Amino acid sequence: MHTPWENRYAQRTQRMGSSAIRELLKLTEKPNLISFAGGLPAPDVFPVEEFTGACQRVLRDKGASALQYGTTEGYLPLREMIVRHSLRFGIEINADNVMVTSGSQQALDLLGKILINPGDRILVESPTYLGALQAWNAYGAEYVAVPSDANGMITDALEEALRTGPKFIYVLPNFQNPTGVTLSLDRRQKLVELADRYGVPIVEDDPYGQLRYEGDHLPSVVVLDGQYRENNDVCYRGNVIYLSTFSKILAPGIRLAWAIAPPEVITKLVQAKQGADLHTSTFNQIVAHEVSRGGFLDRHIDVIRKCYGERRNVMLGAMDRFFPPKVEWTQPEGGLFLWATLPEYLESAEVLKEAIEQNVAFVPGLPFYPCGGGHNTLRINFSYANPENINEGISRLGKVLNNMVGKEIAG
Amino acid sequence: MHTPWENRYAQRTQRMGSSAIRELLKLTEKPNLISFAGGLPAPDVFPVEEFTGACQRVLRDKGASALQYGTTEGYLPLREMIVRHSLRFGIEINADNVMVTSGSQQALDLLGKILINPGDRILVESPTYLGALQAWNAYGAEYVAVPSDANGMITDALEEALRTGPKFIYVLPNFQNPTGVTLSLDRRQKLVELADRYGVPIVEDDPYGQLRYEGDHLPSVVVLDGQYRENNDVCYRGNVIYLSTFSKILAPGIRLAWAIAPPEVITKLVQAKQGADLHTSTFNQIVAHEVSRGGFLDRHIDVIRKCYGERRNVMLGAMDRFFPPKVEWTQPEGGLFLWATLPEYLESAEVLKEAIEQNVAFVPGLPFYPCGGGHNTLRINFSYANPENINEGISRLGKVLNNMVGKEIAG
Repeated sequence: MHTPWENRYAQRTQRMGSSAIRELLKLTEKPNLISFAGGLPAPDVFPVEEFTGACQRVLRDKGASALQYGTTEGYLPLREMIVRHSLRFGIEINADNVMVTSGSQQALDLLGKILINPGDRILVESPTYLGALQAWNAYGAEYVAVPSDANGMITDALEEALRTGPKFIYVLPNFQNPTGVTLSLDRRQKLVELADRYGVPIVEDDPYGQLRYEGDHLPSVVVLDGQYRENNDVCYRGNVIYLSTFSKILAPGIRLAWAIAPPEVITKLVQAKQGADLHTSTFNQIVAHEVSRGGFLDRHIDVIRKCYGERRNVMLGAMDRFFPPKVEWTQPEGGLFLWATLPEYLESAEVLKEAIEQNVAFVPGLPFYPCGGGHNTLRINFSYANPENINEGISRLGKVLNNMVGKEIAG
Repeated sequence: MHTPWENRYAQRTQRMGSSAIRELLKLTEKPNLISFAGGLPAPDVFPVEEFTGACQRVLRDKGASALQYGTTEGYLPLREMIVRHSLRFGIEINADNVMVTSGSQQALDLLGKILINPGDRILVESPTYLGALQAWNAYGAEYVAVPSDANGMITDALEEALRTGPKFIYVLPNFQNPTGVTLSLDRRQKLVELADRYGVPIVEDDPYGQLRYEGDHLPSVVVLDGQYRENNDVCYRGNVIYLSTFSKILAPGIRLAWAIAPPEVITKLVQAKQGADLHTSTFNQIVAHEVSRGGFLDRHIDVIRKCYGERRNVMLGAMDRFFPPKVEWTQPEGGLFLWATLPEYLESAEVLKEAIEQNVAFVPGLPFYPCGGGHNTLRINFSYANPENINEGISRLGKVLNNMVGKEIAG
């Protein structure tokens, strides 16, 4: 069908195109395929019963307001709950610092809308979260990439990147998507110090912070920034915009997340959100508040931790057994993902084609690198498949890898 | 608090600022104030009981998928329901033509994102829907305004506006927001004919089409476009992108709407939506589908029609009784709003200040005019307040107006 829209698309759509890898991933929808590609929570741990009760109570007691339009900032009792929740992790804020968003993806989009002029540089870890790149490409962002290792962003390389004058630093310190690695405490401190010295603010994206399966919780970058130059009194200085979400601790299908920012940034975000979707579902906000209150969220996070921690262990064990010795991978202390690196001579996109043939899938690492690299890397999710499928899927993937690594050596 | 964000906002934020009128409207949140300012549905007609049952059934039977991530296009059974619903109104499409959005506001935002380059002209009615201007200002849109009268956009003035080369035409043919007027059949046909001749496509925004309280349903612009040059065979030609919503026929708090477009435009919208919020709440989509099916939506729309039709009549009667003869207003055949025009020498923003003093509010017309004008106009909502409050509120507003009209004459 030829329509008059065809030659009318905005220039920015040229940077929003579908990727070859997205096309490949469409092939993973076949039956019997075990997918480690998505970033999906396990449906086994969705609190279906608690949602049922909460929906009933909310509609009975607050039906008229739950189904009505709401404020753009978000449902005040939910924002106040987020304030209390944040305080427990050392983030000292009030409700004026909180905006509810339709998933963290929307927070990334709105930040792009209010901050990024075409050509602005954003300093990111390499590799970094693909969704942020998708959101910001539409606003004409360019990227300065700082490489990372098993301790996260290599802060020794940060200063050089800061000299290019980036608009802000984007970092995922805990169990990063895609690598699963955690930024070490000394690097967090170094990041705060250098950001302060160069006057460059930080966007801290923390969707998985509470999903830790071993080791001790590390203070967030936003907390360390509050302590910096303040004689260790914790306070919110406004240099760090902090993002988190209910998607991984409650359920992603309700599309609920939040941004913490200085009030004047919240004002801009609210203006942007008014134009973007007016407000986030009132019903979902009130239901999420009703489900979460009374300590349920803490108890539920323990359930998730236990489930995902076990799956991580099963996967690491299976990789030890089935993967060829030339493949390396990260040992995430939490989160949903791990990251594997193949020998240089292999393309993970080629491996994916073979893997799909063998009914197993992952995401090739290439698109997570905004400035190139990563042809031989892959992201593997361990939260969605159950232990039995993890063993079977990693065994299948191991066969594919052994075959391809072997072929190259033979050739 | 001074933060490093302050001097980092994108240029586009300069066109997204808070307006003086928005500040005024914040004053309407006082108790005992009767507000005709919002565009809120009556909570009296929210189908709370049906939502309660639907939530229970959805969580019992489909809990795992309802709380999980979903596809960006939207829940397929809901899109198929929208296809069947559309067909009844003569819009012949299939599910590939439908995308679910987080309210119609998001459809407007995503259309701006994929279509508008800075400086592009959009042809709009004057006055037009403020939310569209808010969404598109962020993408640097300029506007060409065609005036309207009691029969909607004056199509005799359309050709001159089309010669300026607009990217698309934006029109709300049924019970327009803000004026409440309906585009007559011959003007709809003229619009389709001229759009075709100049090769300019149309965005038809139809949130209220089914809320008609008198007169006969008129075919949508998208239907007339399908019949044009096609020997009266109805088909979807793709020249018109059609928007509608569940906000006015079910509940706005679930943030559910839809866009109908050619498949290649849907592909672009899906790419834009991936970056904007990944997808619309799976839970809300499945619940809305569960609530709506089995003919409930039709029965419920009859209930809304009866309620709002009565409120419209009460308001028109009260205006006849209480408003000074120098004030004129529209006679909407449906929708949520009517539009009043004061004598030229009055500023409706000044009237609003007095009105808030007297505990009644409306929206001044000025911001609905993208190219100036309308200082003496106002939008009045008749769906939200109950009949008793409508009488009382219009009586208060009548006193304010009589006083101000009288003062000017005395002066």
